[in-house]
Amino acid sequence: MRLHTTGQIEFSVSGSTRFLFNLHVVSAPGQRIERESLDLQPADAVLLERPAEGGAGRLVAITTARDLSVFYAADVVCTHDLRLVGEVSDWPIADLDHARAAYLFPSRYCESDLLGRFAWQKFGGLTSPFARASAVRDWIRANIAYVLGSTHSGTSACAILVQRAGVCRDFAHLGVALCRALNLPARYATGYACGLQPPDMHAWFEVAIGPGWLAFDATGLAPVNGLVRVAHGRDAADTAIVTAFGPANALTLAFSCQPTDANEPFNAISDDSHVLFSEL
Amino acid sequence: MRLHTTGQIEFSVSGSTRFLFNLHVVSAPGQRIERESLDLQPADAVLLERPAEGGAGRLVAITTARDLSVFYAADVVCTHDLRLVGEVSDWPIADLDHARAAYLFPSRYCESDLLGRFAWQKFGGLTSPFARASAVRDWIRANIAYVLGSTHSGTSACAILVQRAGVCRDFAHLGVALCRALNLPARYATGYACGLQPPDMHAWFEVAIGPGWLAFDATGLAPVNGLVRVAHGRDAADTAIVTAFGPANALTLAFSCQPTDANEPFNAISDDSHVLFSEL
Amino acid sequence: MRLHTTGQIEFSVSGSTRFLFNLHVVSAPGQRIERESLDLQPADAVLLERPAEGGAGRLVAITTARDLSVFYAADVVCTHDLRLVGEVSDWPIADLDHARAAYLFPSRYCESDLLGRFAWQKFGGLTSPFARASAVRDWIRANIAYVLGSTHSGTSACAILVQRAGVCRDFAHLGVALCRALNLPARYATGYACGLQPPDMHAWFEVAIGPGWLAFDATGLAPVNGLVRVAHGRDAADTAIVTAFGPANALTLAFSCQPTDANEPFNAISDDSHVLFSEL
Amino acid sequence: MRLHTTGQIEFSVSGSTRFLFNLHVVSAPGQRIERESLDLQPADAVLLERPAEGGAGRLVAITTARDLSVFYAADVVCTHDLRLVGEVSDWPIADLDHARAAYLFPSRYCESDLLGRFAWQKFGGLTSPFARASAVRDWIRANIAYVLGSTHSGTSACAILVQRAGVCRDFAHLGVALCRALNLPARYATGYACGLQPPDMHAWFEVAIGPGWLAFDATGLAPVNGLVRVAHGRDAADTAIVTAFGPANALTLAFSCQPTDANEPFNAISDDSHVLFSEL
Repeated sequence: MRLHTTGQIEFSVSGSTRFLFNLHVVSAPGQRIERESLDLQPADAVLLERPAEGGAGRLVAITTARDLSVFYAADVVCTHDLRLVGEVSDWPIADLDHARAAYLFPSRYCESDLLGRFAWQKFGGLTSPFARASAVRDWIRANIAYVLGSTHSGTSACAILVQRAGVCRDFAHLGVALCRALNLPARYATGYACGLQPPDMHAWFEVAIGPGWLAFDATGLAPVNGLVRVAHGRDAADTAIVTAFGPANALTLAFSCQPTDANEPFNAISDDSHVLFSEL
Repeated sequence: MRLHTTGQIEFSVSGSTRFLFNLHVVSAPGQRIERESLDLQPADAVLLERPAEGGAGRLVAITTARDLSVFYAADVVCTHDLRLVGEVSDWPIADLDHARAAYLFPSRYCESDLLGRFAWQKFGGLTSPFARASAVRDWIRANIAYVLGSTHSGTSACAILVQRAGVCRDFAHLGVALCRALNLPARYATGYACGLQPPDMHAWFEVAIGPGWLAFDATGLAPVNGLVRVAHGRDAADTAIVTAFGPANALTLAFSCQPTDANEPFNAISDDSHVLFSEL
Repeated sequence: MRLHTTGQIEFSVSGSTRFLFNLHVVSAPGQRIERESLDLQPADAVLLERPAEGGAGRLVAITTARDLSVFYAADVVCTHDLRLVGEVSDWPIADLDHARAAYLFPSRYCESDLLGRFAWQKFGGLTSPFARASAVRDWIRANIAYVLGSTHSGTSACAILVQRAGVCRDFAHLGVALCRALNLPARYATGYACGLQPPDMHAWFEVAIGPGWLAFDATGLAPVNGLVRVAHGRDAADTAIVTAFGPANALTLAFSCQPTDANEPFNAISDDSHVLFSEL
Repeated sequence: MRLHTTGQIEFSVSGSTRFLFNLHVVSAPGQRIERESLDLQPADAVLLERPAEGGAGRLVAITTARDLSVFYAADVVCTHDLRLVGEVSDWPIADLDHARAAYLFPSRYCESDLLGRFAWQKFGGLTSPFARASAVRDWIRANIAYVLGSTHSGTSACAILVQRAGVCRDFAHLGVALCRALNLPARYATGYACGLQPPDMHAWFEVAIGPGWLAFDATGLAPVNGLVRVAHGRDAADTAIVTAFGPANALTLAFSCQPTDANEPFNAISDDSHVLFSEL
């Protein structure tokens, strides 16, 4: 599957402002970047660092004192590593190392330290890590309403558990927080998503099971084979599409992800049967 | 049933401090005060206002700059107005007037404004006010652990819903908040409780159903016929046993409630069959 | 001064919904209602209770299952009881009674229980109640930015203290909370405001000083002689312009307040010199 | 200076529990470990991973189903890299790379996203990074009371800003949060502290300035040359002395740090003149 992704961002800027962007597709197993472009206006915006290869994301810093327009586009060859539910259902929790331990601790939007009783009460009866993580996903899908505009940038997992409504970011935060409360290392991932309606940047959560990370999308809105990773981290604080340090207002945020060949239809695969796996 | 209640409070005081106490049994239908005393040390503590009869509680204000010792005792003849569950189960919601409307709105520890989706999702399928309120009580009893020391003076209903543990104050706050979210006027009540183990001041919630208020105790720890009202209000902010305005530390807080006649055993009545009703 | 006030509210309604409105000018010393109208569409909306005279506000309940349109208008003769700052500056704190005690306790949006250290650190050095309350007003005016859209319906005083931005509702909440933390009974008041730009419903805080209540407007946006009271209470939870119990979305909320006679100019009086006093 | 540090921890354990400890002195420039021991009871506690050298800390995982006793001791040769205030006062902000960018984002206990207005209002007038960070330290020292027992494990920087009291952990969180709000990468550090009274584990904050990190201790309770690093991270969530995953209650937490040679007096150096610098 070859996917074409675009990201368009415009900001009005009223003073010297530094921006950090998580906009680039990461180069990783399962997603090879064939072609890629980043257009900046004004042309003299200072691009402080070129995106690095690999890792949690390719953070781009831009500084400008004038209105900023960013257009990113990429062609990505996706060879998603999908595993059958039956294969992973009894995988053990991943071995704990320093890197994974960081994903056991609470973070800005995932207060897992407050959710222990709830998590064990609801999901403690299940035994395998996959059973627990997928029960978390299913519980969120059944109990949290997907309501555009119901949350704001400061909304955290506990607030979602109380108000019972949110968007993909919030669904992922709650999944992360509940898994961490169950002692499962869990991270927040964000990226483009083919088949997502309406088109937007998407978010899901990933849990350290077996030899790597399994992806869970509590929204149920995006096929598992349509996810194109941009970044992962503790939560949305680490992986925000854009963080502005200075006076700036967002005017446009638009994202798309489609098959490059309109004649090659996208065959959506459901999380009923398959799970997306990442080694890193 | 004649009950003897006592309340003992000691504070170390390091500067001029005003205290407000909710310690007195209220004179109300169903509880007639036969005998009552209030001992203060130092003797020159200024008792700013004598408790008034009736109403939501009998607030007592005391000002002192020296260590304070308060001992309250009362003999109360209780003729509890207990109604059979079958009688009240289809009572309509009480008529809305100005006084009751105040109990529809969120308060310091009962953020009913945030709990609408949760409340309707869990309890909206039930139709009668009594069915909803008793389902709220039962849900709290089944899902919130009673854990001494698990909360602090700032803990509110939403925090309890997240952390799933609390004490009687917290159980009552969550009951109040969920009922208000269901558009039922609900208030917080506090008082002595015969049969409560270990002995302490108790708290429960009350809902405006039929011609008055029905009492619900989510803890299930106190018999419905052992409750002796001290105060009711929006939540614990209105009805705190003691509020200190100035430098003071609590040393002792001890409460008891027992039959005056040791030969007259207390026959505990369960909320499986009966509900305590208050007209006011 | 004769003022003409209007309030226009439209809701789209998708199910049987009860609304509570705080929209009517209260009949009180200093503001006499000469003429008043309330137009409802649909005509068959059930007006559950006629507004009562006096008290904290004139709550109106309306139930409808169809889109609702409310238009309120009144002509009010205002004889504001303005006191010179010099007169009130050494008034003592008002005597504490049951009614005022309720305004010492924290409420939904005014967590005075958390603000004691801050309040005493900043304002404890001042001695008279008026000096403290007006220093609270001045501190808020100097330190909190008035930014439309910076807050939402759940924003409380502590959040404002952290984020340092809000609107009139938030300014009033912070004023209430800080005064209560200083042991001054304080309430939230809302109403129409002549001279407010842009026209909107307004909010301020009032403190129990001397023989009644003194008004403080931390926003500094409305002249003290332009305030027309609609309601007061613990905070915005008690006095919301509209509370909807059921499925409904606000479409229009528009308010105005102007001299009835365009030839009679409005002579704005500043809080530098005068304070609005209410006996009740 | 050769320092002897000890850490003693005892837990009652009522089921299989995994513990993560941040207890070991890190091997880093400026602190060379001469001798070190870790005693565990029961002897069969499973020590899942040996502490690694370097990095943010040396996390130790222990699993046991019986009561746990841990005793750690080390002799550390400290050659603190202290810089004169005059040297660092105009160092620029450190270059931004992927590792440092993580310390710009908000974390569990450091909600820098909410503190922008406050931080710029108070500290924006200063220009150099060192001037801003040391003004943050001084402001906290002057405005937040050090009160044992005033906070709990869930207390975050915003709560501290409101309640104006906390302990070393809270002072460090607020320092981190305010610096991040000022666009300065900031991290939380914890360790042993010679000269701290009463002896305890300590915490401070560090800011990416010049070629590395400068340390700031808002408590003012520990000399800058007495700090022995155990770990650093986003905040206390990353670097908790102990995190228990399972049923366990802390019985003992005791720490000490003293010169190994009682005849070699400890000459405390103040942060008036010197700043501790770390390259990593």
